[in-house]
Amino acid sequence: MEYDLKAGAKRVVANLRELAAMTSDENGAQRIAWTPTWQKARDWFAEKMIAEGATISIDKAGNSWAKIEGESEAAILIGSHLDCVPNGGWLDGALGVVAGMEVIHRYGKKGVKPKKTLYLVNWADEEGGRFGRSLIGSSAVSGTMDIKDIIDLKDNDGVPLVDALKAYDVDLDHIMEVHAEFADKNITGYLELHIEQGPVLEQTKKSVACVYGITGCERHYLKFKGQAAHAGSFPTLMRQDAFLAAAQASLSFREIALKYDGVCTVGKASVTPDVVTIVPETCTISLDQRSIDPEKLKAMFAEAHTAAQAAAKTHNVTVTWEKIWNIEPTIFDPQLTKLCKEAVQEETGEDTTMYSGPLHDAAEMAKIVPSIMMFAMSAKGLSHCKQEDTPDADLEITASAFLRLADKALKA
Amino acid sequence: MEYDLKAGAKRVVANLRELAAMTSDENGAQRIAWTPTWQKARDWFAEKMIAEGATISIDKAGNSWAKIEGESEAAILIGSHLDCVPNGGWLDGALGVVAGMEVIHRYGKKGVKPKKTLYLVNWADEEGGRFGRSLIGSSAVSGTMDIKDIIDLKDNDGVPLVDALKAYDVDLDHIMEVHAEFADKNITGYLELHIEQGPVLEQTKKSVACVYGITGCERHYLKFKGQAAHAGSFPTLMRQDAFLAAAQASLSFREIALKYDGVCTVGKASVTPDVVTIVPETCTISLDQRSIDPEKLKAMFAEAHTAAQAAAKTHNVTVTWEKIWNIEPTIFDPQLTKLCKEAVQEETGEDTTMYSGPLHDAAEMAKIVPSIMMFAMSAKGLSHCKQEDTPDADLEITASAFLRLADKALKA
Repeated sequence: MEYDLKAGAKRVVANLRELAAMTSDENGAQRIAWTPTWQKARDWFAEKMIAEGATISIDKAGNSWAKIEGESEAAILIGSHLDCVPNGGWLDGALGVVAGMEVIHRYGKKGVKPKKTLYLVNWADEEGGRFGRSLIGSSAVSGTMDIKDIIDLKDNDGVPLVDALKAYDVDLDHIMEVHAEFADKNITGYLELHIEQGPVLEQTKKSVACVYGITGCERHYLKFKGQAAHAGSFPTLMRQDAFLAAAQASLSFREIALKYDGVCTVGKASVTPDVVTIVPETCTISLDQRSIDPEKLKAMFAEAHTAAQAAAKTHNVTVTWEKIWNIEPTIFDPQLTKLCKEAVQEETGEDTTMYSGPLHDAAEMAKIVPSIMMFAMSAKGLSHCKQEDTPDADLEITASAFLRLADKALKA
Repeated sequence: MEYDLKAGAKRVVANLRELAAMTSDENGAQRIAWTPTWQKARDWFAEKMIAEGATISIDKAGNSWAKIEGESEAAILIGSHLDCVPNGGWLDGALGVVAGMEVIHRYGKKGVKPKKTLYLVNWADEEGGRFGRSLIGSSAVSGTMDIKDIIDLKDNDGVPLVDALKAYDVDLDHIMEVHAEFADKNITGYLELHIEQGPVLEQTKKSVACVYGITGCERHYLKFKGQAAHAGSFPTLMRQDAFLAAAQASLSFREIALKYDGVCTVGKASVTPDVVTIVPETCTISLDQRSIDPEKLKAMFAEAHTAAQAAAKTHNVTVTWEKIWNIEPTIFDPQLTKLCKEAVQEETGEDTTMYSGPLHDAAEMAKIVPSIMMFAMSAKGLSHCKQEDTPDADLEITASAFLRLADKALKA
């Protein structure tokens, strides 16, 4: 019997609702990694996959793997995460895993043995919802995680990460062994479906898109330093107002974002002494700059320096930069991108493509294996909140497109 | 023997140093009202004044009065404050009181009986250094203080203002009686010498100026409200960035200040959720606008509304205003202004005049009696810090000019 894409897509939505009902409360989804509700989601995943004939294993980083043997040892990996932020949405991460579960269903014991071997992974702790460090499971597999960066982390109750992970059989002394184990799996391609978490597809009235890459990011603090002065007695032209310098710089950053078709965000801002009657002596802001184009990102970063310096000069203050973090843009595998665009085209009649601003496990996977992502539209662009949603019709179109992509990748 | 202005001015500086030595530590002056160090200053004041033949009284608001009988009952009042902010300077307030002490010396038992009766007042708690409410003593005398505004105040250690004042024999049930008592004093003019606390005189190379008024002030909070959004996935043109709206408005406020020759200060600024990767949903800023011209102040306030609205519209956010406080400009008495300009002219050869941005006790006095102020230059415009200073030569010129003014006022 021919596999029914429409019925498969409906099963994805039904399974997402089943999971949400099990793991949400009145404030939203609560599948925070390394908590009992997350374990409930992992158990649900394992039971369902075993029922489909998959073999289940949990690796030393807490990632859950389901496997269906194919005709060849060459394997395709589908992945995303069942964990979420506190008071999160029902789709962020879950969509990708649950769509992958339908792929397992399609090629499992009730279906047709695939040409290639098929893996599905539920990455552990993509969100960092409890300990603040994201991409735990996938960065262990990619080999980029540095244990030093996480060994001292504690949750808001003071529980050490080390202890919390041990309760889920993850030992930091052995966690990096998953990197070598990955090589043994002979995986030749990685596919990840996710919600967009932004408004682009909704605004352009698209349900689904091929995601050809993930932006790079330059993330810094800027501290403007001027001179505190009495709000009544200091003439405007003699002031060294750190806040006005930061304000001018921030407006320039927006122009830079528009010029290079990237984004620049000043998310944090504070002044000292923070008194109504005193001209601000210092103003510290954060700047997060993203572009899919490494040359544009470099240019945006350089022009932000120039703009900050110009703003500092105008207001007779100084500015210093402190790096928080940066990452190069990820451009996904051209062959998988072609397959993904075909799948979207076949499903919708248009080969809609876009890039991702948010980070995903695929950014880690792309470092070690050809990878691709697909996005479903997000209603109002909302995510990381209980209002996160995608209409059923769009979810079904997306799930169907992803089933097409998986089929192509398993045959390629 | 003719009174020696130069010698009198030098005594003013010597007395200021004597007071500073008694009441400062390595962090600056510590004469915070309603504390033992302030009491030490009051005792020093009283002893010195009694030695000059003055009669001393402390009123029900904690103000210390020294009195020299004149040939007539019509009286001139000289005033300022010995209290200071924590870690304050040696001159803010003290200069005016100590210069007044030299006027008492000039007309006291070692001097010549003045034509008019002479009062010198050390106002209680001009700074609000302990409880945050300024002008306690002078606003009780002017009758503008509302007990409701202060009755619940506590200091940083949780001590109620009510208890702290009682320890200095000030009872809130009786404090406002000082308003009626003032009328009995038959005071016809109020003189106050102060440091500028700004850079204008230093920049224009003047030692002293006649102060013809105090700016009015419009003080408000502005809250810009947009929509939080992911720093990676939200395109620039779709954002509703509350911080950028506040930034644009704040830069406009500076232009308004320049246009009307006033000042506009954004002293406080904060954003929510204040996360590096989230576009700010709200930004709250304070705006303090001052002008000596009531019409200009109105225009500045109106144009600030227009500018804030325009900034909100540009960034697709809303803005709401919340009033903190406002006061009309004070223009001092024309006759006393004429005498003050003459005194400055005689001392320096120029009738330098300016207005005050900071508030002073004279703003309260001007409501009930003809008043005038005089300013000494402030080195680097610094005040409310231990670096606050005025070179001896400038202090002496200023003290001499003030002695001239007092003499003119007592004879007028």
